[in-house]
Amino acid sequence: MMIIMKPRSTQEQLDEVIVAVEASGLTPHVIVGVEHTVIGAVGDGYLVPTETFEFLDGVESVKRITQPYKLASRQFHPEDSVFPLDGFTVGAGEIAVIAGPCSVESRSQLLETAHAIREAGANALRGGVFKPRTSPYSFQGLGEKGLEYLVEAREQTGMPIVAEIMSEAQLDVMLRYVDVLQVGARNMQNFNLLRAIGKTRLPVLLKRGLSATIDELLMSAEYILAGGNERVMLCERGIRTFETTTRNTTDINAIPVLKSLTHLPVILDPSHSTGYFEFVTAIARAAVAAGADGLIVEVHPNPAEALSDGRQSLKPEKFAEMVSQVKEIARVMGRELAPIHVSAA
Amino acid sequence: MMIIMKPRSTQEQLDEVIVAVEASGLTPHVIVGVEHTVIGAVGDGYLVPTETFEFLDGVESVKRITQPYKLASRQFHPEDSVFPLDGFTVGAGEIAVIAGPCSVESRSQLLETAHAIREAGANALRGGVFKPRTSPYSFQGLGEKGLEYLVEAREQTGMPIVAEIMSEAQLDVMLRYVDVLQVGARNMQNFNLLRAIGKTRLPVLLKRGLSATIDELLMSAEYILAGGNERVMLCERGIRTFETTTRNTTDINAIPVLKSLTHLPVILDPSHSTGYFEFVTAIARAAVAAGADGLIVEVHPNPAEALSDGRQSLKPEKFAEMVSQVKEIARVMGRELAPIHVSAA
Amino acid sequence: MMIIMKPRSTQEQLDEVIVAVEASGLTPHVIVGVEHTVIGAVGDGYLVPTETFEFLDGVESVKRITQPYKLASRQFHPEDSVFPLDGFTVGAGEIAVIAGPCSVESRSQLLETAHAIREAGANALRGGVFKPRTSPYSFQGLGEKGLEYLVEAREQTGMPIVAEIMSEAQLDVMLRYVDVLQVGARNMQNFNLLRAIGKTRLPVLLKRGLSATIDELLMSAEYILAGGNERVMLCERGIRTFETTTRNTTDINAIPVLKSLTHLPVILDPSHSTGYFEFVTAIARAAVAAGADGLIVEVHPNPAEALSDGRQSLKPEKFAEMVSQVKEIARVMGRELAPIHVSAA
Amino acid sequence: MMIIMKPRSTQEQLDEVIVAVEASGLTPHVIVGVEHTVIGAVGDGYLVPTETFEFLDGVESVKRITQPYKLASRQFHPEDSVFPLDGFTVGAGEIAVIAGPCSVESRSQLLETAHAIREAGANALRGGVFKPRTSPYSFQGLGEKGLEYLVEAREQTGMPIVAEIMSEAQLDVMLRYVDVLQVGARNMQNFNLLRAIGKTRLPVLLKRGLSATIDELLMSAEYILAGGNERVMLCERGIRTFETTTRNTTDINAIPVLKSLTHLPVILDPSHSTGYFEFVTAIARAAVAAGADGLIVEVHPNPAEALSDGRQSLKPEKFAEMVSQVKEIARVMGRELAPIHVSAA
Repeated sequence: MMIIMKPRSTQEQLDEVIVAVEASGLTPHVIVGVEHTVIGAVGDGYLVPTETFEFLDGVESVKRITQPYKLASRQFHPEDSVFPLDGFTVGAGEIAVIAGPCSVESRSQLLETAHAIREAGANALRGGVFKPRTSPYSFQGLGEKGLEYLVEAREQTGMPIVAEIMSEAQLDVMLRYVDVLQVGARNMQNFNLLRAIGKTRLPVLLKRGLSATIDELLMSAEYILAGGNERVMLCERGIRTFETTTRNTTDINAIPVLKSLTHLPVILDPSHSTGYFEFVTAIARAAVAAGADGLIVEVHPNPAEALSDGRQSLKPEKFAEMVSQVKEIARVMGRELAPIHVSAA
Repeated sequence: MMIIMKPRSTQEQLDEVIVAVEASGLTPHVIVGVEHTVIGAVGDGYLVPTETFEFLDGVESVKRITQPYKLASRQFHPEDSVFPLDGFTVGAGEIAVIAGPCSVESRSQLLETAHAIREAGANALRGGVFKPRTSPYSFQGLGEKGLEYLVEAREQTGMPIVAEIMSEAQLDVMLRYVDVLQVGARNMQNFNLLRAIGKTRLPVLLKRGLSATIDELLMSAEYILAGGNERVMLCERGIRTFETTTRNTTDINAIPVLKSLTHLPVILDPSHSTGYFEFVTAIARAAVAAGADGLIVEVHPNPAEALSDGRQSLKPEKFAEMVSQVKEIARVMGRELAPIHVSAA
Repeated sequence: MMIIMKPRSTQEQLDEVIVAVEASGLTPHVIVGVEHTVIGAVGDGYLVPTETFEFLDGVESVKRITQPYKLASRQFHPEDSVFPLDGFTVGAGEIAVIAGPCSVESRSQLLETAHAIREAGANALRGGVFKPRTSPYSFQGLGEKGLEYLVEAREQTGMPIVAEIMSEAQLDVMLRYVDVLQVGARNMQNFNLLRAIGKTRLPVLLKRGLSATIDELLMSAEYILAGGNERVMLCERGIRTFETTTRNTTDINAIPVLKSLTHLPVILDPSHSTGYFEFVTAIARAAVAAGADGLIVEVHPNPAEALSDGRQSLKPEKFAEMVSQVKEIARVMGRELAPIHVSAA
Repeated sequence: MMIIMKPRSTQEQLDEVIVAVEASGLTPHVIVGVEHTVIGAVGDGYLVPTETFEFLDGVESVKRITQPYKLASRQFHPEDSVFPLDGFTVGAGEIAVIAGPCSVESRSQLLETAHAIREAGANALRGGVFKPRTSPYSFQGLGEKGLEYLVEAREQTGMPIVAEIMSEAQLDVMLRYVDVLQVGARNMQNFNLLRAIGKTRLPVLLKRGLSATIDELLMSAEYILAGGNERVMLCERGIRTFETTTRNTTDINAIPVLKSLTHLPVILDPSHSTGYFEFVTAIARAAVAAGADGLIVEVHPNPAEALSDGRQSLKPEKFAEMVSQVKEIARVMGRELAPIHVSAA
């Protein structure tokens, strides 16, 4: 950590900072500059918040040199994290293609979609049963009934199932049904939820918040990892910017940046990151070309009747086209789509 | 709602849209333009999501004319909402000044702060006991012990107490202690929490999310109002932009915009919206000049030792200066600071 | 255009709007809604600014249905624009790879770079001679001397040359030397410059401004097209967001969005859109996978000695790797890199 | 400047950085940390770009400690800059109120507006004659004829006149007519224009770009100051964010931040920073309460007929109300509105 003193700070103020640095278990090194004196605080600083020094008299600002996370960092874990996901592995050569409807709306809708995406090449099924909706007047999901349909779809297709958890109160019921817990963008900093999930051993798909920095995403992953749950996938799903022709702005840079900072697998959600089905396939290809380890895509057999997010859902035949294009890009990247689950009916 | 068809859409597609509009209980009116045909869907549309039409074949986009919220709207409730808050009223002529430490750190820290801010002119006490922290390694709050200290401070000073709730699991304990529930920026779209709070009758301070639009803030208020809890205060606390000299960007426009759109009281948090104590007083003055109904400000007797957010906390003497300046601005606005609670010791 | 009246607007106000619509050469169609009356103004509306109606009494807002540009629109020009660029074509099957140093710094630096990139597979040479620098104390470019070096590099390698123009005062000198005029992000709305360029017939590489919307980029292209110069390439170079791990955020969505809205070729600049050479190759692959028609990339033989933007420049050997990876992605897309100029020495 | 080495950088790489630091006239101080070695480069670093070190092998990043500008910095010029503006002073106790139409549209429109605003309390007249318009099909301004009308208005009212310059080619004609040159948001980084203006001695109103940081605004001021022209006023006019209920987001924080960083006067433009006349007065009050030295406001006698920006223009009677409210806020701040020019007819 570098602590920058104000231009006209006093020797006494400097001495107090030095005492505080030592009290934090760090070793101070002073550099006297023309305008500013800078104290380098050397040691294992990721546990020491910058606030420890920011408000001391005479301090102008504190800049962190090391990352504020450790378990999520590639520095302490240079190899890619790879973990099995019911029939394939995430984080290595295989590209995960998770697909399904935004919301589970009915048994027939889900089963029809599940079979269609499996045939098209998906290797996991997603479906929302508790839905975070901006409006209290919108469809809020089928709840546990939806989980039962997901399990039935898993039995029929062999694909592991992914569903979003919105509250730690839903953890018990989710644990009884799903294979992967999804934490949505709006809950990326629901720290109670993250801590609760950290105590489980279920794989987690952690979505980046609408305006979360990459560092904040990694800090949220750190919450889960610190609980002992090491199976975290990170998901870029678009950030909020001034641009309005798309629902969000796909931060494609986040893919190579995350791959350089962390060992965790990185997934892209081109449905939310664009908001329009017309652009999903192009961005899915781009994601894999940029180095993503997987995709999560909304598919609906009849998007016009979708109770949520129909505008960004692919029809099964469009999804099949997407998969075949992504497969070719994956091959250029020396990767392949994860195989369809062998135990499937 | 206006449904805009694509340039080369067919008569059949138009007919299907008309059927869907009627099925939603709305009346269609067709305008044939040079490039685009537009269908006006007339009726009580705030309950109909735009998604209902967005994905129909031939539809280019759907634009909402009416607001997607109703209970929060000034259109349906033209007079300002005014409600009592233990000794004063919020939303009318009196300006609420809520102050206190970011975190309750100890009994003595809290009591010292409470007496100091009361003397300086605050009329409510805030203090965090469950802290949403970006890092799992940071101080996470004193929990229920902190609530006990807050109650003791209320007994000594007469000021109502405000504390942040992070999860619906904390609702029972919070109801036993606090006078105002604060919903933090990161939980503005924690819909389970909003629904749970909607069932109580406790006043709520609902903070705008870091990248939430004003419409989204009002939709979150609508969740609480729809549950029957009408005592919602909205709080602008800065939004995330590209600017880095301050922690956030105070969206001062939000004050007159909210006052025009909704009848709910509007509060500003200049501590979080700037992030540096040096700028808090100037922005507090600006808020009241722009028409805010109150302020919530972080005060710490010794910010250098604060376990969180010390950088943006005012010392009690600086806070007293802020209050006296704000009082003068309030007078120009034809308002006054809410009086100090009469029952105070 | 749809003109939305305020909830309690009067018949007189409505009548005035109708008169104004007719005066603009449009035909009014009135829809009386529950809260709002809406007037559809039908006709060739792209020449009528929304301001014409926005301030009339009783008007709440005006929403444009048709795009505010015409010459740039794919609607009026469904086929891709394709134009020759000294040895290859832009906008069709061939991918343009424009490369070179941020600034022309010396004759030897430029010639060395030019030969290296040509060997690696570039088909055009870029180099800045007038440099827009944030600081008045930074290197501002070699000016006309730099143009002479560029011409010498063209003679030796056969590659057409691209250089940035900063002011209409530089137009005459630029016309004497360069093959493609680059308009930088900071000048995207320098309308005097755009108009001046519109009168020439030189191909233009128009970069998107740091916070320009896609619509604004197309309106700036419209300025050039309206002057009669049809050879405009659009360039996404990253937008400014809250994320700080990269210099800018590559708006990869802009590629398929632009391809759907306009017939003009779309180029991506992964050097500026990331700001770090480590991420350039991944984003270059992503761009071509998303459908870009070309790339513009900074290459420097010795980035450590670059007078500008060294942090984002590729060394020639890294650039050669990038080209070979991009070539494979292009093949999947049914495209190929534009051939190296045949007349080259 | 602090140069942070990568975790596994070598001694040789460190030695090269040390040589480069010394070659830049700075003195290196090395701190060996647990993961990172940091080199403090001590000396007068504002002239040395960070790029000098960023690309050296083994360097992870370079952080600037001192500001990259000097002439604009309060550190080197602690007292507020105050300069006369034809009848009053800018930057001291008096609040400048500059008003007028967005565009000069006709002689009668301008003269009517000028008299009305003077009566209402304005002390300078603004009016655009060269208009930067997003669309090539919009009204582009009256040019020199508009300047003649402005001069006539000055003769009749005694108020100094402010007009926007869009290109260095317009400098000669502007110098013949105007009292203050306005540089618009889109030209904040038109460095050729800034340099040309730096050579004049005319007061300048420099508007912040739509997505310019505060540091970039100060660097643009530095361009003008470095040319010897010390009469620069900075103008906050709203930044571009994700919020869409207003045209821009007023960065009210920028006022106290700028007042702390620079000695130059700070003006706010509430017309552009909100985009809707309904919110202009509230934000004008807020600006003065936050410490602004002046306002620039759009006024139009008949906004419904304005050829540009009618939606954000105040009618003269609304402007008079605004002035009287601002006057009261100014009094609380210990300031007063600048007096109306004595030489006026």
